[in-house]
Amino acid sequence: MTEHVLVTGGKGFVGRPAVTELRQRGFEVHVVGRETDLLDPSTTDALVALAPSHVLHLAWTTAHGKFWDDPANGTWFDATIRLARALRDAGATRFVFGGSCTQYEWTEDALGADGVAHEDTTPRRAEHAYGQAKERTVAALDAIDGLSVATGLIFFPYGPHEKPERLVPSITRKLLGGEPAETTTGRQVRDFLHVDDCGAAMAALVDSDVTGVVNIGSGEGHSVAEVATTIARILDREDLLQVGALPDRPGEPPRLVADVTRLRSEVGHEPRYGFDDGLRATVDWWRRQA
Amino acid sequence: MTEHVLVTGGKGFVGRPAVTELRQRGFEVHVVGRETDLLDPSTTDALVALAPSHVLHLAWTTAHGKFWDDPANGTWFDATIRLARALRDAGATRFVFGGSCTQYEWTEDALGADGVAHEDTTPRRAEHAYGQAKERTVAALDAIDGLSVATGLIFFPYGPHEKPERLVPSITRKLLGGEPAETTTGRQVRDFLHVDDCGAAMAALVDSDVTGVVNIGSGEGHSVAEVATTIARILDREDLLQVGALPDRPGEPPRLVADVTRLRSEVGHEPRYGFDDGLRATVDWWRRQA
Repeated sequence: MTEHVLVTGGKGFVGRPAVTELRQRGFEVHVVGRETDLLDPSTTDALVALAPSHVLHLAWTTAHGKFWDDPANGTWFDATIRLARALRDAGATRFVFGGSCTQYEWTEDALGADGVAHEDTTPRRAEHAYGQAKERTVAALDAIDGLSVATGLIFFPYGPHEKPERLVPSITRKLLGGEPAETTTGRQVRDFLHVDDCGAAMAALVDSDVTGVVNIGSGEGHSVAEVATTIARILDREDLLQVGALPDRPGEPPRLVADVTRLRSEVGHEPRYGFDDGLRATVDWWRRQA
Repeated sequence: MTEHVLVTGGKGFVGRPAVTELRQRGFEVHVVGRETDLLDPSTTDALVALAPSHVLHLAWTTAHGKFWDDPANGTWFDATIRLARALRDAGATRFVFGGSCTQYEWTEDALGADGVAHEDTTPRRAEHAYGQAKERTVAALDAIDGLSVATGLIFFPYGPHEKPERLVPSITRKLLGGEPAETTTGRQVRDFLHVDDCGAAMAALVDSDVTGVVNIGSGEGHSVAEVATTIARILDREDLLQVGALPDRPGEPPRLVADVTRLRSEVGHEPRYGFDDGLRATVDWWRRQA
């Protein structure tokens, strides 16, 4: 029997490769895109009629630069729980939620000297409304009877279709255009992963029976400066890169890297891209858009 | 048929008068005190055997000056949800949770110029682990099927059996002993209520079918300085009171008062004490302890 999966946010940055991977795994996929208003209760009825067995819920408020403190976070919490319960009543048994590494407490004290976030021991505490609403969602989903629930805590994806103002696209596009690219000193180390691996990992999580939170990262730490210099090296435009030209933002932890033990050993996801070839594939994609 | 209510934290400051009121309302009350380790899963079995129809859950980590950031907050979240589900499975239909006004965002921006917290519109966002764990608990309890759930957000109770280092006992005991009592300028306005009214309000909430969060306060704002001068006036020891002798703590909102519309009109609770006679009864109680 073919299993049906409903993917909200299925045309978004992570949703697109997740849908591709779910289809490859044999799922029949119902994609819900941005044009569907999940906050409208009548939408729930339409989705319930699809009676999916599995749900990958990636849609959430993402108004750029505003969503951290957007009151809509509370509305998305309500809508998510309403949707999960309605789909459970209609026969869904598996629900995977798209969370983020920003749900961890972003302090050196919480992350430790190695800056590695562990699902079971690193405190999850956010000052922003976004992180607190996501954490309330994790808690409420777990309390719903008859639904196997997991949350992927997504680290720092990059790749095709990323918003042009983000780190990798902005540097890549400037260098492709022959313009100088300025960055901060970029010493902060983060866990970057190609969005195809991110989507594939979320799809693997849907297709598993792992419950609780799972880090979705590469397990490797690279500095923002390394990202910039690698792109410049790929494009052979190191002459245009000006690391340290922009002022650093204070108060962010020096290292934030995923412990991917659970992703590898329990979910069974292995990444397709390493750091260099992931960036190379992404630069090639942007070159084709130019 | 007599209804059975289980009260955790039933020997605590708020629990004690809540138990008294529940008995007056005709409930058979099972009191769970501090000697019972709610974090021990085997405790759940013993409580389930009591098969209460109603639960008032007031127990929580309260290690003084430490609980704001205590990792035990996460453990109490887990224990609370486990307990609620187990009691639901054993036939409980009503669950009331003891929350606090510290779950609101304590900023002037969130509270507005009048400093009144409204259940439906004032943002609830806490920087501390305590408030975030309480909010996760509210969210998860609401998601449990077959349980009617309400949370009382308790403002600033004072009264018999309060910890001696707290505001009202510390001033009262010093003045009763003929010692000088020093306070800050005490300009911040809070919603103080006698603990008997607080307990009675929680009991009324248990005995209602109101769901969601309900402010448990007096609806009146009085400054900390007013509390101190009222106690001094009652004891006729205004000569010993030194308002402004201690340095103010910065960063707290100037006003935090409960909107008690829901408590009055939906829960139907009317307070027994006003500000002056509540403090007078409390001072009399401390005098009898001397």
